[in-house]
Amino acid sequence: MTKKTDKRVGRREFLGSAAAAGAGAVAIAAATSSFPAPALSQARVEWRMVTTWPKNLPGLGVGAERLAKRINDMSGGRLTVRVFAAGELVPALQSLDAVIQGSAEMSHGAAYYWQGKSTGLSFFTGVPYGMTSRELAAWVRFMGGQQIWDEIYDKFGVKGFLAGDTGTQAGGWFKKELTSVNDIKGLKFRTPGLGGQTWEKLGAAVVNLPAGEIFPALQSGALDAAEFIGPFNDLALGFHQVAKNYYFPSFIEPGLALELVVDKRKFLALSPDLQAIVESACQAEYDQVASDFYANDPIALKTLVEQHGVKVHAFPEEILKAGADAAREIVGALRASTDPLVKKTTESYIAAFNTLRTRTRAVDSAFLTARDKYFNL
Amino acid sequence: MTKKTDKRVGRREFLGSAAAAGAGAVAIAAATSSFPAPALSQARVEWRMVTTWPKNLPGLGVGAERLAKRINDMSGGRLTVRVFAAGELVPALQSLDAVIQGSAEMSHGAAYYWQGKSTGLSFFTGVPYGMTSRELAAWVRFMGGQQIWDEIYDKFGVKGFLAGDTGTQAGGWFKKELTSVNDIKGLKFRTPGLGGQTWEKLGAAVVNLPAGEIFPALQSGALDAAEFIGPFNDLALGFHQVAKNYYFPSFIEPGLALELVVDKRKFLALSPDLQAIVESACQAEYDQVASDFYANDPIALKTLVEQHGVKVHAFPEEILKAGADAAREIVGALRASTDPLVKKTTESYIAAFNTLRTRTRAVDSAFLTARDKYFNL
Repeated sequence: MTKKTDKRVGRREFLGSAAAAGAGAVAIAAATSSFPAPALSQARVEWRMVTTWPKNLPGLGVGAERLAKRINDMSGGRLTVRVFAAGELVPALQSLDAVIQGSAEMSHGAAYYWQGKSTGLSFFTGVPYGMTSRELAAWVRFMGGQQIWDEIYDKFGVKGFLAGDTGTQAGGWFKKELTSVNDIKGLKFRTPGLGGQTWEKLGAAVVNLPAGEIFPALQSGALDAAEFIGPFNDLALGFHQVAKNYYFPSFIEPGLALELVVDKRKFLALSPDLQAIVESACQAEYDQVASDFYANDPIALKTLVEQHGVKVHAFPEEILKAGADAAREIVGALRASTDPLVKKTTESYIAAFNTLRTRTRAVDSAFLTARDKYFNL
Repeated sequence: MTKKTDKRVGRREFLGSAAAAGAGAVAIAAATSSFPAPALSQARVEWRMVTTWPKNLPGLGVGAERLAKRINDMSGGRLTVRVFAAGELVPALQSLDAVIQGSAEMSHGAAYYWQGKSTGLSFFTGVPYGMTSRELAAWVRFMGGQQIWDEIYDKFGVKGFLAGDTGTQAGGWFKKELTSVNDIKGLKFRTPGLGGQTWEKLGAAVVNLPAGEIFPALQSGALDAAEFIGPFNDLALGFHQVAKNYYFPSFIEPGLALELVVDKRKFLALSPDLQAIVESACQAEYDQVASDFYANDPIALKTLVEQHGVKVHAFPEEILKAGADAAREIVGALRASTDPLVKKTTESYIAAFNTLRTRTRAVDSAFLTARDKYFNL
């Protein structure tokens, strides 16, 4: 257990050992063969993935573990990823710094946690009243989004991949019912990123806390309200025990993307097949995480309502409208940013958004409206 | 060129050679090494992927080629997939049979093309007025859909993976405008699967034709109308040259999934890492194909309207309602099927649909409605 490179150390044991916390990525063996040189590297590498999620948190922590397993399986163990829950190696909100500083090779989280480094990063998680998850993926993959994201992260020596999506989220848990915008004044509300800024404009006193710290803050009264994701993991985090009013939909997180950030230099040093494996593993997980939320959210919501007496509400129209006005101001300010990269990100996002929403409106929304009106099984 | 196992034959040359059409899957080399035995196989295998799409058809043919490349790249060339457009090795609608009979290892298409083998297969492409693509993926991946799909395909010795999705489609191209259900009577309309049955109930004379045969049939007058996918590849296929009325949305294809079917015995004989690679490659492509359509549909529609004088319409409410009634009858008949597997598929689908749509309605639709009402950039 004291030998840093002991590859047989199990994960559970590993976590029990403070000494092991510094264990690095090690090439365990480099095979050579004289018989038809395979196109792929035989070196075995172990990488550390720090995450911003509590261990085994439904949808998110589980998604990080599954992503690691996918890479392990596809590489036949040549690239083994060891996952650390928030706080195991570094605190949740130091995950990106851990990769930048070299104490981990990968960080699993959400880009908007790092908006202190560049506001442009918010766009790669989601923007209030902005793109849905399908629209965001279209922008990132086919409309120049990834190139801009790369440009931002290049400054920090890292690279980001979309690695999950929650779909449109729930609006949040409120101890008291909301009847008008006035009810928001002074409300101590946990909500991060540009969404937090939106609620601030509506009068809330906004704080950000990582997932694991929300429940105690709601319980102690440090928070009056909190939004995290949606029924599936909100149920697991127990918010319904301390707040009974659950509002829908989230107008600030219409499609929240997760990211995997990798140390760019180490990533480019991988053989091309391992690079391709990491990239496709992230994209497969992008879909798998979304499917997980779509499948499990409605089941969890049923449990919350029927077994825990949660009261489901739609936001009052007045709040929806005020939220849209606030979101427009926030995006407008980013478009006017003096940071050329933030300006460029915002302009690319807006152009793509205005194109993409024409399809969503004429096709997706039109279909869903007809289905709700005419079809039952 | 006459030696079946000549691995240096380029794809272009290959296609020019009838003799080569019988080339089989061959293990080219099996490496052995005495130095730390890698967990992965060094055997090199070449597989044939037949497709139901014309060569390089945007979104679909391109998606098949990209899927093959993904597998090639991730396996470091150990599993090389050679792609055949419709008609190159077998006609489009014989792709599944080619895999069943062993003349190809993979087929890229849509499961509802094979509803003659089992009506249950339609559910894995899409059902009129049924699941959107996110809902379908949730059912397949987390609510028992894949298990049922496996049960159906097991009878044919194959296995299916979701490998793409078009999103909700366009309703179709009509030479004459539609004002009421009466206009559908006797209309010669190309539309496959359960969607075709829906339009039949509305009075259309329905035919199925593979993608490459639709344009000439519209031109010759053998068809009065046709639906294929949406603006992105409809533009490439040239339908606007012979029909000017383009209707939205498709209520019969609210989320059309593509499949990759593999020879199950040969798939299970692959090393575990290669199996994992095929599986994740399909799931990554599931997202990539959808992103491609979401990004390019609205751009293509703009071209169709502004440069080709296409007239965009919403279906009359009367037709939307009649379509919903017809779809309900069709799904109801499948639920009452005497084939236990069809009945089981239908019941699993309906249960998942009724759960999933509660989220879509309260979250996705509610958000899109608010966005359309209040938000512009």
